[in-house]
Amino acid sequence: MIHIKTKIERPSPELIEPFSKLGAATVHEASGRKGAVDPAIKPIRKGLRLCGPAFTVQCAPGDNLMLHKALEKAQPGDVLVASVSGYPEGGYFGGLMAVSAMARRLGGLAIDGCIRDSEEIIAMGFPIFARGFCIRGTSKSVPGLVNHPTVFGGIVVQPGDLILGDDDGMVVVARAEAESVLEKALKRVEAEVKKSEQLRSGVSSVELNKLGKVFEALGLVEE
Amino acid sequence: MIHIKTKIERPSPELIEPFSKLGAATVHEASGRKGAVDPAIKPIRKGLRLCGPAFTVQCAPGDNLMLHKALEKAQPGDVLVASVSGYPEGGYFGGLMAVSAMARRLGGLAIDGCIRDSEEIIAMGFPIFARGFCIRGTSKSVPGLVNHPTVFGGIVVQPGDLILGDDDGMVVVARAEAESVLEKALKRVEAEVKKSEQLRSGVSSVELNKLGKVFEALGLVEE
Amino acid sequence: MIHIKTKIERPSPELIEPFSKLGAATVHEASGRKGAVDPAIKPIRKGLRLCGPAFTVQCAPGDNLMLHKALEKAQPGDVLVASVSGYPEGGYFGGLMAVSAMARRLGGLAIDGCIRDSEEIIAMGFPIFARGFCIRGTSKSVPGLVNHPTVFGGIVVQPGDLILGDDDGMVVVARAEAESVLEKALKRVEAEVKKSEQLRSGVSSVELNKLGKVFEALGLVEE
Amino acid sequence: MIHIKTKIERPSPELIEPFSKLGAATVHEASGRKGAVDPAIKPIRKGLRLCGPAFTVQCAPGDNLMLHKALEKAQPGDVLVASVSGYPEGGYFGGLMAVSAMARRLGGLAIDGCIRDSEEIIAMGFPIFARGFCIRGTSKSVPGLVNHPTVFGGIVVQPGDLILGDDDGMVVVARAEAESVLEKALKRVEAEVKKSEQLRSGVSSVELNKLGKVFEALGLVEE
Amino acid sequence: MIHIKTKIERPSPELIEPFSKLGAATVHEASGRKGAVDPAIKPIRKGLRLCGPAFTVQCAPGDNLMLHKALEKAQPGDVLVASVSGYPEGGYFGGLMAVSAMARRLGGLAIDGCIRDSEEIIAMGFPIFARGFCIRGTSKSVPGLVNHPTVFGGIVVQPGDLILGDDDGMVVVARAEAESVLEKALKRVEAEVKKSEQLRSGVSSVELNKLGKVFEALGLVEE
Amino acid sequence: MIHIKTKIERPSPELIEPFSKLGAATVHEASGRKGAVDPAIKPIRKGLRLCGPAFTVQCAPGDNLMLHKALEKAQPGDVLVASVSGYPEGGYFGGLMAVSAMARRLGGLAIDGCIRDSEEIIAMGFPIFARGFCIRGTSKSVPGLVNHPTVFGGIVVQPGDLILGDDDGMVVVARAEAESVLEKALKRVEAEVKKSEQLRSGVSSVELNKLGKVFEALGLVEE
Repeated sequence: MIHIKTKIERPSPELIEPFSKLGAATVHEASGRKGAVDPAIKPIRKGLRLCGPAFTVQCAPGDNLMLHKALEKAQPGDVLVASVSGYPEGGYFGGLMAVSAMARRLGGLAIDGCIRDSEEIIAMGFPIFARGFCIRGTSKSVPGLVNHPTVFGGIVVQPGDLILGDDDGMVVVARAEAESVLEKALKRVEAEVKKSEQLRSGVSSVELNKLGKVFEALGLVEE
Repeated sequence: MIHIKTKIERPSPELIEPFSKLGAATVHEASGRKGAVDPAIKPIRKGLRLCGPAFTVQCAPGDNLMLHKALEKAQPGDVLVASVSGYPEGGYFGGLMAVSAMARRLGGLAIDGCIRDSEEIIAMGFPIFARGFCIRGTSKSVPGLVNHPTVFGGIVVQPGDLILGDDDGMVVVARAEAESVLEKALKRVEAEVKKSEQLRSGVSSVELNKLGKVFEALGLVEE
Repeated sequence: MIHIKTKIERPSPELIEPFSKLGAATVHEASGRKGAVDPAIKPIRKGLRLCGPAFTVQCAPGDNLMLHKALEKAQPGDVLVASVSGYPEGGYFGGLMAVSAMARRLGGLAIDGCIRDSEEIIAMGFPIFARGFCIRGTSKSVPGLVNHPTVFGGIVVQPGDLILGDDDGMVVVARAEAESVLEKALKRVEAEVKKSEQLRSGVSSVELNKLGKVFEALGLVEE
Repeated sequence: MIHIKTKIERPSPELIEPFSKLGAATVHEASGRKGAVDPAIKPIRKGLRLCGPAFTVQCAPGDNLMLHKALEKAQPGDVLVASVSGYPEGGYFGGLMAVSAMARRLGGLAIDGCIRDSEEIIAMGFPIFARGFCIRGTSKSVPGLVNHPTVFGGIVVQPGDLILGDDDGMVVVARAEAESVLEKALKRVEAEVKKSEQLRSGVSSVELNKLGKVFEALGLVEE
Repeated sequence: MIHIKTKIERPSPELIEPFSKLGAATVHEASGRKGAVDPAIKPIRKGLRLCGPAFTVQCAPGDNLMLHKALEKAQPGDVLVASVSGYPEGGYFGGLMAVSAMARRLGGLAIDGCIRDSEEIIAMGFPIFARGFCIRGTSKSVPGLVNHPTVFGGIVVQPGDLILGDDDGMVVVARAEAESVLEKALKRVEAEVKKSEQLRSGVSSVELNKLGKVFEALGLVEE
Repeated sequence: MIHIKTKIERPSPELIEPFSKLGAATVHEASGRKGAVDPAIKPIRKGLRLCGPAFTVQCAPGDNLMLHKALEKAQPGDVLVASVSGYPEGGYFGGLMAVSAMARRLGGLAIDGCIRDSEEIIAMGFPIFARGFCIRGTSKSVPGLVNHPTVFGGIVVQPGDLILGDDDGMVVVARAEAESVLEKALKRVEAEVKKSEQLRSGVSSVELNKLGKVFEALGLVEE
């Protein structure tokens, strides 16, 4: 069995770039409402955005050994997507690791545990989505996996899937579907501009979404 | 049975206006310590305030149909108070709905579920209190109720009750009691200014609150 | 039995001062990974720091009587460390108490319950770590303890222990160990500066931490 | 203001008796899917059933004074429905109180907090629905309310409403609706006997519930 | 896209039969410590066991339409493995459905939501693992998926994987690995019998597991 | 530093024996309402009782190495009181360890994590209080402590303290106070027999506890 895989396929930079400007909710809708990660995993400061190919990491509870291996092997732009086996309350990632991640121009970190040295990392500008902050130290001695499929915030992530996050949360897009999702997302953005104008001019969302017939079909009685 | 009621009685604007400058904790105290909503329902950004008559909405889990009806029927200044039947993790309200709500000059939204497009809505300035953010889409197809009494954050809200929120949380004041609560709240504010001066000058809160006799009555031994 | 103790031994100001510039995670590591308080007890605004001798308070659920006694008896620089007996959802500390605490130049408050008047207290600059905000009023009538050992966020705190907090969380250092912990913490800071430089220059954290032999010993297979 | 009300209207014993043989789920359905209490409030042993008019009690956190008043005033058959203001972890009701409740032939206790002396109470056979067991003592000194409307497990309970519980949970039926709900529930039971026979003979529930057209309308593709 | 798949490959009955006598913990160990389902999903009565090929179902929150389809399509011995999209508090499965499932000789149900009519279902003997009991009714109108890979209690389940549960919890074994896992599990059972005898005779588990050298390597000081 | 202490002082068997017949709630009251352990740590089957001197163990998250050391060193009658550092979801103790514990005639196990092989252990009759059951395997490689003071379910436990548990929960009694607590507990039991008789004869608990004057002092208005 190979524990640490390093040869993964990624979406092309040309595909990632336009995604980086889209909202997570928009992409989730364009994906057919798939891929919504547990929203308790949040950006470490308001306004942070994350977008890139998932470089997946599976850590043992309270151990960050595999994150070090991932830091060593990931390529510029990659987003480390780290699962911590159900023990969030450790400081799995800290200031020194962020320094290394920035030196290697990684795209960010998404982790279903906590991090520490948050003030310093926020000042550096390295984008992280995490469950929170925790000073508790972790060990560097227990085996795990790199670039195996992993369950992250309730969603299966394959290495090389696209992961995208903003203040609303994170969404995972399968690599093979990225292109068609992008297309649908861009159309959705366009359509929303028009809808927004109509709503601003006073049209109701009931009218806009043709919900009148829904209310009628349901037989809801209105005063 | 009438599902959607639209004729509700509201506190007068003259009554709402002075409330809008009061803190939620002060009003809670002036109400005889009633009406404190579950504090897990928080403003979507620090510093947001909410004050107005409750326009209540009961949504089915994962469905926002009735919120659209409420947007259509609420009057300027009304605060939509929406209960989502115990399934908070959906994006029940988003950017387009906020555009419509602002076009109709609603007073805000209080919801015991999540919203999405938070960055955009915060930029618009539409005041929302919610459990958090979530990109997961909702349906628009399941019936619910508008302006029926509802349990919101553990508190019974009648349509037309006054709801008020700040960074500390939200409080609900029964319409019939609003006037007397306001009076007590204003007196409380006045009294606190004096107390604040005394405390600042070095008087202890034990002295100020005459707690000496409480300690004595309890027989607490002091070193 | 003496309920309210006031004669406690504190670390010297010369010892506290250098601690106040250290990160909580660093001090936790220097303590041999002890003393990490439950990270759900957070600063009331990002960037707040807390550092001083613990003046411990044990409140009954929903009652803040003993906090008033503590405000009266604590010395300048002391940090009130208040446990609320497992009922966090009350507003145990508010604006007036903060005015008094600042008038008496206390070092701050760490509480495993909620506070209220948060906007006002943040504006004043009084440092508080708490579970959150809650408007619900508390009584001032139930006995408790002052300066007895207490369990706070899962950690035993003795009166006079040093408590230190930043955005990452809080750490408690036993008074008797404070000096040696400080020494180790300062060395750690120094070592991290060097490590940071190496990582910035492209050395991997695997190399820096000599993790190669760990991976080897574990027999992890790499692609 | 009257804190302790004792004159409440109850459903007739003739109405309560047939309810006592129905399942909570059946009654919930017959009520139009209303009145489902938070299922974390469970019978203290499997197989316990509870059915009677609600005699509502509002306790302060950690205090059971009002439960004693309720024990004194409730009538045979009444079910005490006690809310504990969001602090479940106290032993609000114990063996002695159960002795008194049985001596007075009360119908049971439903409480959104914990109880103690569970082994003894289960042996006595007094029916209780609670959040769990807790030895922590409560005070008998803080005011509350008796027979005011209360929010219990997320549901508004009016004094004299019918409350019914079994292993699946509890349901509250408004007094005015009890008769019509009973009628619908009995019809439902009858219908279920027939359905059960059909299903047992091999008819699928898709066929029985005519779900074929639902699948068709939704356009679900089947292999 | 095919929503409802029915042609799945299953482990042979010869393979399933010996598994049905093994403990979930033993199989988890024999799997290399993989496949442990969230233990909050528990048998509806102590002593229940579940073992069979997974027939996976994905329900919308608060809707059980797809469970009816699964009941219609599953084969004798199959275990329905149903995910409810993060909204556990509904009664997704009840007495009538259990009657149908038994008539069709299904192997059981594993669901990450609640069920109702528990007393009746326990009496029938149909094996169910669930998060709890809840009377709240569900709709039969929202689309979902049958026999697509699903995340169940934090674990990815492929249709036809083997799922096994006892009082300790559930474990999922990939179909392709079932044979080798069985072999290892049987060896483990055999080894445990011997170990049990040694421990019973007074040998310590430190000695049995040769932990002396671990303590030595760690440098732990013993009094 | 000594990690593993083995010389602890215990209450005498003459003291432990009468405690073993008392209820946890009674002992908690007799202790002045101290020592109530988090009630989420429950007996693994209804009716189990635990009573003995605490032999404390501190495990690293997901590791049970120190439990093996404790099994080796504890004396007959000792109750292992094990804290698992905030990661409950592992199977820290299983059937083989229970065999060894019974061979060595230990008094039981109290653990703030999960155990596995529950069916087998219940059949053996070895008394365990735990947070639940979990099949997830633990490592045997990370250092911890034996017989150091530990925080267990929110309560500080010193080695040799008396720990007592029944269906209601657990209570810890400091060794030095055990004798006086026993005396008070026995008196309490005696008094309760009399009170029980009075209540059974129809005296109300308001009368029995002289609560009339409390209601009067509070000014509660009765209908």
